[in-house]
Amino acid sequence: MPQVYQQLVETYQRLEKHYQDMQDIEFTIENKKLWMLQTRNGKRTANAAINIAMDMVDEGLIDDKTAVMRVQPASLDQLLHPMLDPKAKKTLLAKGLPASPGGVCGKAVFSSEEAVEWKEKGHKVILVRIETSPEDIEGMVAAEGILTTRGGMTSHAAVVARGMGKCCVAGCGDIQVDYRLKEFRAQGYVVREGDIVTLDGGTGEVYLGEVKTIQPQLGASFARLMKIADQYRKLKVRTKADTPRDAATAREFGAEGIGLCRTEHMFFGADRIDWIRRMIVAETLEDRKKALDQLLPMQRDDFYQLFQVMEGLPVTIRLLDPPLHEFLPHTDEEAQELAKRMDIPLEELRRKVRSLHEFNPMLGHRGCRLAVTYPEIYQMQARAIAEAAALIVKDGKELVPEIMIPLVGVRQELTMMRELVDAEVKTVQSEKNVKFDYLIGTMIELPRAAMTADEIALDADFFSFGTNDLTQTALGLSRDDAGKFLKTYVSEGIFEKDPFMTIDAQGVGKLVKMGVDLGRQSISDL
Amino acid sequence: MPQVYQQLVETYQRLEKHYQDMQDIEFTIENKKLWMLQTRNGKRTANAAINIAMDMVDEGLIDDKTAVMRVQPASLDQLLHPMLDPKAKKTLLAKGLPASPGGVCGKAVFSSEEAVEWKEKGHKVILVRIETSPEDIEGMVAAEGILTTRGGMTSHAAVVARGMGKCCVAGCGDIQVDYRLKEFRAQGYVVREGDIVTLDGGTGEVYLGEVKTIQPQLGASFARLMKIADQYRKLKVRTKADTPRDAATAREFGAEGIGLCRTEHMFFGADRIDWIRRMIVAETLEDRKKALDQLLPMQRDDFYQLFQVMEGLPVTIRLLDPPLHEFLPHTDEEAQELAKRMDIPLEELRRKVRSLHEFNPMLGHRGCRLAVTYPEIYQMQARAIAEAAALIVKDGKELVPEIMIPLVGVRQELTMMRELVDAEVKTVQSEKNVKFDYLIGTMIELPRAAMTADEIALDADFFSFGTNDLTQTALGLSRDDAGKFLKTYVSEGIFEKDPFMTIDAQGVGKLVKMGVDLGRQSISDL
Repeated sequence: MPQVYQQLVETYQRLEKHYQDMQDIEFTIENKKLWMLQTRNGKRTANAAINIAMDMVDEGLIDDKTAVMRVQPASLDQLLHPMLDPKAKKTLLAKGLPASPGGVCGKAVFSSEEAVEWKEKGHKVILVRIETSPEDIEGMVAAEGILTTRGGMTSHAAVVARGMGKCCVAGCGDIQVDYRLKEFRAQGYVVREGDIVTLDGGTGEVYLGEVKTIQPQLGASFARLMKIADQYRKLKVRTKADTPRDAATAREFGAEGIGLCRTEHMFFGADRIDWIRRMIVAETLEDRKKALDQLLPMQRDDFYQLFQVMEGLPVTIRLLDPPLHEFLPHTDEEAQELAKRMDIPLEELRRKVRSLHEFNPMLGHRGCRLAVTYPEIYQMQARAIAEAAALIVKDGKELVPEIMIPLVGVRQELTMMRELVDAEVKTVQSEKNVKFDYLIGTMIELPRAAMTADEIALDADFFSFGTNDLTQTALGLSRDDAGKFLKTYVSEGIFEKDPFMTIDAQGVGKLVKMGVDLGRQSISDL
Repeated sequence: MPQVYQQLVETYQRLEKHYQDMQDIEFTIENKKLWMLQTRNGKRTANAAINIAMDMVDEGLIDDKTAVMRVQPASLDQLLHPMLDPKAKKTLLAKGLPASPGGVCGKAVFSSEEAVEWKEKGHKVILVRIETSPEDIEGMVAAEGILTTRGGMTSHAAVVARGMGKCCVAGCGDIQVDYRLKEFRAQGYVVREGDIVTLDGGTGEVYLGEVKTIQPQLGASFARLMKIADQYRKLKVRTKADTPRDAATAREFGAEGIGLCRTEHMFFGADRIDWIRRMIVAETLEDRKKALDQLLPMQRDDFYQLFQVMEGLPVTIRLLDPPLHEFLPHTDEEAQELAKRMDIPLEELRRKVRSLHEFNPMLGHRGCRLAVTYPEIYQMQARAIAEAAALIVKDGKELVPEIMIPLVGVRQELTMMRELVDAEVKTVQSEKNVKFDYLIGTMIELPRAAMTADEIALDADFFSFGTNDLTQTALGLSRDDAGKFLKTYVSEGIFEKDPFMTIDAQGVGKLVKMGVDLGRQSISDL
C-alpha cells in the first residue's frame, strides 16, 4: 500500500476515534500528498445506526448511554412500519402532513362504503377524503392508508389513523378532490377511482402509481438497544388507547399503562353512534337518559375488556370531551338518512344541527362543560367505569381506575364533577357490594387551569397535561387552521419548530411548570 | 303629633345618619309602641341617586368622595339613552343579551336594504337579523335599533351598535326568524314586516308593539357629580372609535384620546369593501398591491380626519386584525352578486371562500399573522398613517400616532412588524420631508404574550391589554359560543359573573399582572 493510503486509513481511524462515530470524509491526493477536505458524522438508516452503535459499544469506543443517544428516536419509525424503497423511481403528486407513518400503496377510493366494498373484493385501497368523520371508521379500517386534503396533525383522520397504527397523509391541500366524479387532481395528473397511489406517512408525500415498499425487520441489535434504553430512561411510558385492540398492541411494545383513553372514540362504532345521536337530539332529560341507558352496557363492556387487557396496569379514562355536534351528520345527505333511521322529521334534526353549530368549537361547549349542563352523561360514564371495575374485582383481580375530567378551567368545575363521580361510583359499589380504590383527576389544558393549579389541585388526585390544547390556547393558534401560515412562521424563524410537533418551551413550557409547581404547593404528592 | 310618630321620625333620622344614606324602613305600631322591623338603603333611579348624593353633600352628611360611590356606574346609562317608561304596559316577547343600551320602538324589517328603504319613506325601523355582517352597516345606520338571534356581547351587531351608540339586543335565541316570509315568531306571536316592536337594550328585552320611552335629561347635579368624579379618579379614559363621527361624540363626553381605533371597520364601507375583497381574492402580489393602492387614499383620509378631530390627543391605531374571510360574502346569493361586480368566475370566488374557511377563526389566520404572510397589508396601513400624520404636521399641528400590532404571541413577530412599520414611516417622512414622533406597541391578548412580556417589551413602546381575547384564550371560551352554557355556569356559581362582562381577576387578572410586571422588568417606563 502506498504510503499516502496508509496515511488515509490512519487518519480515518483517528477521526473516528476522535468523533467517536462513523465518519463521512472528503479528501484529495495531490502530488502524492493527502489533503483532508471535510469530515462529518456519516448518515445512516435506522437499522445501520443501531448496528453501528452496538458495534462501537462492543469495540469499546463508546459506552451504553452514548449508544442510545446515537439513534434518532424518529428514525425508529422506519423499523416499525413498512417503508418506501428509497431507490425506487417515484412520481411525486403532492405533499401533505406526515400524520401517521408507514409506506403503503393501494387503489384510490373516495368513500368509506367503496373502501369496504373494494377491500371485500380483495383489493388494497387508499381512502381519499376531504376530511374524515366518525362515519368513515369502517372505511379507515378497510383501507391500507388514508389521504385527506384538510385538517392538521390532530384532525380526526390523523388521530384515528395513528391509533390504528395505519399510514395517513393529512391536510394535503395541493390535491383537489371531486367526490362526484370520483377523482382527484394534482400537478396536472388526474387520479380516478381504482388508480393506484402510494403514500409515505413518514414524510407526507403522495406518489402516482405503485412504489416498492420494504417490510420492517426488528433484529437482535434493536432488542439489545431497547434493553439498554430501559436501563437509563427516567420516564415511564403509557399509551394512548381507546380500544382493547389498541391497548394490546401497545402492551406488546412495552406500554406501562394507558395514559389517556378517550371515551368519545368508543361512541363512533356503527352500533353506538346512533344512540349517542339520540341522546343529543333528545329534548327531555328522560329521553336523554333512555339513550344513555342503551350506551351504558356497551361502555361497561369497553372498560371491562380494557381493564382485562391491561391486567392491573394503570388506566386513565377521560370522560366525554368533544362538542356534541361532532357526532352529528355533516352533510345533508347523511342527515336525511339519519332522520329516516331515527324516524324523526328531517327539519327537527336540521334544527338541532343548526342549534349546536359553533363558531369556535375548540373554545366551545365541550369537556366538563357538557356535564355541567348535562350531568347525566358523566353519570353514565362513571357508572360504566365502576360496573366494569366491580366485574374485575369479582374476577379476583385488582385495579385502580383513574377518572379524568377534561377541560377544567375553574376549581368549582372539578368540585362539582368530583361530587357527581364519587356519588355514582359509591352507589355502584354498594349495589354490587364490592370495594375498590379509584382516582379522580383532571387534564390541565387551559392557561387558566395552569395558573390556578393550586386551587384545582385541592380537588384532584392527579394532573395530566394536555399540551395540544394548552398550545392552542396559550398561543391562540388552532391546530386545524394554522397549517396555512405555520410554514411561513417556521421559515421566517418566528417559531424554531412547529409548536404542535415540538413543545414551545418558553411559553407553553412555562405554563406547564407553573401548573406543576402550584399544584404541588397545595398537594405535595401530586 | 302623638309621641309614637315623634319617635318614628327621630328613629328614621338616626338611621339615615347612621347609614349615611336614604333608608327604606319597615315598622309596625302595636299598642302605641313602635317596632322597627327592617331598614335598608332605599332603591332609586339614577337621577334620584345623583340628586340624593348631592343633597347629602350639601347637608354635610357625606363627603364628595362618598357621593361619587353612591351612584352605580351602570345606572348612568339611564341618563345617556332613551329609556322605556317603567310604568308602561308591556307584552314581553323574548329576552336576549343587553348588547347596547337604550329603549327604542320601530317597525320590524328583515334586511338592510329594507331598513334603508323604510327609513327613506320616513318610518322608524328595527332591523331584525339572525346575525349581522359588514354588508348590514347601512341598514344598521338607518335603524333605530338592532335585534339579532345569534351572537354574543361582542358579536358584529353588538360591537358596531355600541360604536354607533345605537340600541341593540343580540343573541336572542327565543326568536325564530324567517327571512323568506319576512317574519319572526316568539311566544306564539308572529311579528311581520312593518309590525311595531320595542327593544330595551339595557335589559335585552323585546316587547310587542310600541312602549312609551322617556328621553334622557342631564341635569346640573349630573354635571356637578362628574366634576367631583374627575377630581378623584386615577384612571384616564380613552374611547374606542373607528370613525371621525364616533371620535367626535366621544370627545363631547370627555374622552382623552382614542385607545383603540380598529382599522378593519374602515374597510366595511360600501365604497371600500369591494377593494379589500379584490385584495383578498388576488392571486399575485401585484394584484394585491393594486387593490391596496386603491384603499390607501381612503385610509389616509380616515386617519387625517381622525387626527383632526382629536386635535393632538393620543390616537392608538390597531392594524388589520380579523381573519380575511370576515370580509367575504357569507351566502351564495351575496357571492353571486359579488362575482358579477368583480367580473370573476363565481367558482373562483367560491374556491377562495372555501380555502379561507377556518374551523376556529378566533385562533386562526388573523392579527399580525396576516402581515407575516402578506406584509403589503400593514405596509399600506403604515403608509396611510404616516401620510396622514405628515398632513397634520404640514397643517402646523402636533401629534404622536401610536401604531398597535395585534395578536403578538412571540417577540419575533413584533420585531418583524416593527422593522416593516419603521421602514415605511421613514420612507414617507423622507418623501414628504417632515418629521414626527410615533410609537409602535402591541396588544397583549394571548396568554403566551403575557407570559413572555419581558421579551416582547424589548420591541414595544407601549402595551395595551386585550382582555376579551385574553379571556377567550385563558379560559378556552369562545365569546360567540359560550352564551349557551354561561347562564348555567353563573347560576351554578362556577363563575360569579359572566367573565366577558366582569374580568376574571383570579385567572385573566393574574395574566395581566404578569404581563405588566414582566414588561416593566425589561422596560421600566412601559
